[in-house]
Amino acid sequence: MRPIERRIDAYLSEHLDRYLEETARLCAQPSVSARGEGMVECAQLVGRMLEAHGLAVRIFPTPGAPIVYGHADGISPRTLLFYNHYDVQPPEPLELWSSPPFEPTLRDGALYARGACDDKGELVARLAALDAVREAHRGSLPCGVTFVVEGEEEIGSPHVVSFVQEHLDLLRAQGAIWEGGGIDPEGRPVLTLGVRGVLSVELSVQTLTRDAHSGAAHRLPNAAWRLVWALASLKGPDERVRIPGFYEGALPPSPLDEELLEALPDYEELERQIYGVREFVRGLRGKELNRAVFEPTCNIAGLTAGYQGPGMKTVLPARAAAKVDFRLVPGQDPNDVLVKLSAHLQREGFGDVSVQCLGAMWPAKTAADAPFVALAARTGAEVYGRPALLVPLEGGSTPIYAFAGPLGDLPVVFAGVGYWDNRAHAPDEHVRLQDWLNGARHIARILEGFAAL
Amino acid sequence: MRPIERRIDAYLSEHLDRYLEETARLCAQPSVSARGEGMVECAQLVGRMLEAHGLAVRIFPTPGAPIVYGHADGISPRTLLFYNHYDVQPPEPLELWSSPPFEPTLRDGALYARGACDDKGELVARLAALDAVREAHRGSLPCGVTFVVEGEEEIGSPHVVSFVQEHLDLLRAQGAIWEGGGIDPEGRPVLTLGVRGVLSVELSVQTLTRDAHSGAAHRLPNAAWRLVWALASLKGPDERVRIPGFYEGALPPSPLDEELLEALPDYEELERQIYGVREFVRGLRGKELNRAVFEPTCNIAGLTAGYQGPGMKTVLPARAAAKVDFRLVPGQDPNDVLVKLSAHLQREGFGDVSVQCLGAMWPAKTAADAPFVALAARTGAEVYGRPALLVPLEGGSTPIYAFAGPLGDLPVVFAGVGYWDNRAHAPDEHVRLQDWLNGARHIARILEGFAAL
Repeated sequence: MRPIERRIDAYLSEHLDRYLEETARLCAQPSVSARGEGMVECAQLVGRMLEAHGLAVRIFPTPGAPIVYGHADGISPRTLLFYNHYDVQPPEPLELWSSPPFEPTLRDGALYARGACDDKGELVARLAALDAVREAHRGSLPCGVTFVVEGEEEIGSPHVVSFVQEHLDLLRAQGAIWEGGGIDPEGRPVLTLGVRGVLSVELSVQTLTRDAHSGAAHRLPNAAWRLVWALASLKGPDERVRIPGFYEGALPPSPLDEELLEALPDYEELERQIYGVREFVRGLRGKELNRAVFEPTCNIAGLTAGYQGPGMKTVLPARAAAKVDFRLVPGQDPNDVLVKLSAHLQREGFGDVSVQCLGAMWPAKTAADAPFVALAARTGAEVYGRPALLVPLEGGSTPIYAFAGPLGDLPVVFAGVGYWDNRAHAPDEHVRLQDWLNGARHIARILEGFAAL
Repeated sequence: MRPIERRIDAYLSEHLDRYLEETARLCAQPSVSARGEGMVECAQLVGRMLEAHGLAVRIFPTPGAPIVYGHADGISPRTLLFYNHYDVQPPEPLELWSSPPFEPTLRDGALYARGACDDKGELVARLAALDAVREAHRGSLPCGVTFVVEGEEEIGSPHVVSFVQEHLDLLRAQGAIWEGGGIDPEGRPVLTLGVRGVLSVELSVQTLTRDAHSGAAHRLPNAAWRLVWALASLKGPDERVRIPGFYEGALPPSPLDEELLEALPDYEELERQIYGVREFVRGLRGKELNRAVFEPTCNIAGLTAGYQGPGMKTVLPARAAAKVDFRLVPGQDPNDVLVKLSAHLQREGFGDVSVQCLGAMWPAKTAADAPFVALAARTGAEVYGRPALLVPLEGGSTPIYAFAGPLGDLPVVFAGVGYWDNRAHAPDEHVRLQDWLNGARHIARILEGFAAL
């Protein structure tokens, strides 16, 4: 370890209590975007915190929650962008929390609170990394930093795209650290490099103005049947999506992606345990399960029609609906899929099934051979004492596309403070102090090395 | 009109107030079988009423609500059986009633109360017919009568089959009048001669021990998809049930049934108005809609899986379920269909879809050329001044099979006090006084003619 890294590590350890207090202060401020609770108060608190850490702050209103922006110049003209969010998931069910979700509590080497990990603790770890690096460099930062802390991540980031497009000048950067990183069950740092896009729709059918008695099923059209047949036309048990042109443009993993996928551990047994899976999709086994992330999907997230209580009601439902999401791989476009979906239903005789778009995100992927990825991997290996796992593409979706494209193919990496059981989105969310420290150290080392890329 | 019929009619008109009071007294006693409310009290009240009308009464306990039995001998050794029920549907939603459901109220020539039509008013009309006939015959009944008044019709009559089997000796009869008859929108008496059977099942699938994030849809099996594919294997958009052997044994309408179907009015326009139908099943039009009742059906009564609220939740459901009912025509057997359904799912690769039987009833059909039918039709035409409509088979199901088979092909006819807008099962249920009078007169004439068949 070089002396400068030793100073950084020491600084973070010595000031851990102060940062935990800061994290606790932030977590004590409710900010539940799903019901607009405490959003402005939390944005202002984040603004004051960014200022306290030496950033010039601006708070941008949106039609929803404000976006907090902070910037500080560094010695190098290169700028590293940080994406975080100050909103949290609703804390319910409250009775399953060991301590109240908005009363941060330290126990067993971890801080428990809603947002402790996702994403308030992670934000403070990044601010701590700034302090440590600045202290190690006698008050200067080796590179510029820009923070974007939004307040609507947990509800699909509806205002980030237009914010980025309207403020491209403020956001120029040469690399970005995304929220939500951490370590795998074996303690290896996991660096995610790409996410899938998503198209979310509601399919609904109404065949009658009101429900009828099921004794009329030989005469009256049943909405649930129309929905079932329409859904079955989208995908059969072979899991192949049947919408013509759906797979058009979908890019396979690059040779380097293939190498990374091969290097990832086999999570089959773990998933069998967590979810009690008897058979995976298409009979996939072992490492095939990792590679399958390059398959776009069509998922039924919800089905509703008619009577759903105990026993039987002999009803013929007038209305039926399904929530469906399509996860899209690089090269696919949710707008294009939406058009093809509607055309397919029409062509298959399901013109009576209406398609409502509930949300869309584009896929985004950083080339695994970008020097920024190498920096994050090397520093991760140093901090955690184990080689980093590079995940070329994750199954989920997040609005990286809003930044990466408009900012000129910005390389984006996830690096953070989470671990597999941190209970983000669930009761007893927490961050372990050691994970928090390692996460901050990792960010500090990336800041250290970023100017020289 | 013969003098005896004039006397009967006059008797019923003169005593209408007393019978309305009796109906009101019975309706004022709540008897909601769905929640076991007031069942024993109502059974005792019915028992006292049958006694007051000259019947020897026995009340038989069952594992559910008691069954009230009443009998009186007549001059002829022939016996006519009446099937009625004293339980009612839950009155909710209460706020949609113009007067409280258990406070019978007379207005605009009708009695409003839960049960006023279905089936307490109808029961009292039959008791009134007994009185009128007895009075016209100087205290004797021309034939024997047996009343079975059960308390679980609205919850599927779970204890009627074993009651009949255990008391065949008490139930011997040569004809039966079922509950639930009435007139059509043009005022013609409608005599239903048959009902379909029904098999009700819940199909459910569980692919995981808990819901997952939909970002894992390329790996984890989705219960909603399994359910959709299993359902689509049961029936396609051509409405043909694909379970091998499903149609085996299903009898087509007899030549006489065909004649009756042809004589029925065309309800297409009426159903278009009531239900806002754009297109009927299989494009059926006009009188084809009536004939289609001889097609057995497979109906989805409910679908449930995953997230069903507003907006989107990116969830992969661990569990999905459907309520399905099959309406069966004469010649089909619900037990046989249940076996074939399970075998079909297994064979089609849906062994993971579990099938739970929620209920079964057998079809039952009275031959349209039975002399008992001719009596009901002739007397109906006399009372209503219009030819009776004979419905060879109705779309719904009711436990006629429990009586008709064990009692040796007992001919069964529906004849009653309902009309198309009586709101049975709904708020503001009522019986019109004129319908009540006509219903009682019709029963009296059937009693009159029954001995001579």
